[in-house]
Amino acid sequence: MSRQELPVLNPETCCTPLVAEALTEAAAADLARGFKALGDPVRLRLLSLIAARAGGEVCVCELTDAFELTGPTISHHLKVLREAGLVDSQRRGTWVYYWVVPGRLGSLSRLLDTSAMTSGVPG
Amino acid sequence: MSRQELPVLNPETCCTPLVAEALTEAAAADLARGFKALGDPVRLRLLSLIAARAGGEVCVCELTDAFELTGPTISHHLKVLREAGLVDSQRRGTWVYYWVVPGRLGSLSRLLDTSAMTSGVPG
Repeated sequence: MSRQELPVLNPETCCTPLVAEALTEAAAADLARGFKALGDPVRLRLLSLIAARAGGEVCVCELTDAFELTGPTISHHLKVLREAGLVDSQRRGTWVYYWVVPGRLGSLSRLLDTSAMTSGVPG
Repeated sequence: MSRQELPVLNPETCCTPLVAEALTEAAAADLARGFKALGDPVRLRLLSLIAARAGGEVCVCELTDAFELTGPTISHHLKVLREAGLVDSQRRGTWVYYWVVPGRLGSLSRLLDTSAMTSGVPG
């Protein structure tokens, strides 16, 4: 049931900040897939609700309750997040439970890290 | 000419990692706009080329040379990046010069930061 083993990011290309090294085409394609999944307010809030859960996982039943959207719409957004490698899920009995994949979030975070930036920026 | 002063992120909502606090609707809408702009391989490579430039800015003429795409297509992608607050630009003579907006990149980076994650994640 777990999809965490699906290949998402090549660790050799995923983690260097943009400010340190230009991206290859292959890395850009993979990383853009992750950012595209984040490029929707509902998906970002869903990810946020899952990520902020102290227990580490959230029942889909709670996520549906948090939005004025239909169950199928929520399920579609969760599927996009899962296919982008940002969350993983497991069915237990009636409900599906979701949790974030910290490695994937961390890779995208490091890519945008500007702390290594030292040069002066005009403007 | 500079658009760096345009409002993009409310600093009070932009910078808390997802794993620490669930997003508000307003913050999610703003942040999703940034991620959506990053959700395209060409835009991500353009941003990467600009960000990795030690001198801090890049002439649009160099960016066009790096892709097998028409000038108008490159310009369109740069406009999306600029409207999302990720880069800023200035025309000088014949050419337009681009640089990254570190604050915006840093906000998106911090949002995805998982280093505060302490709970066990199943799977």
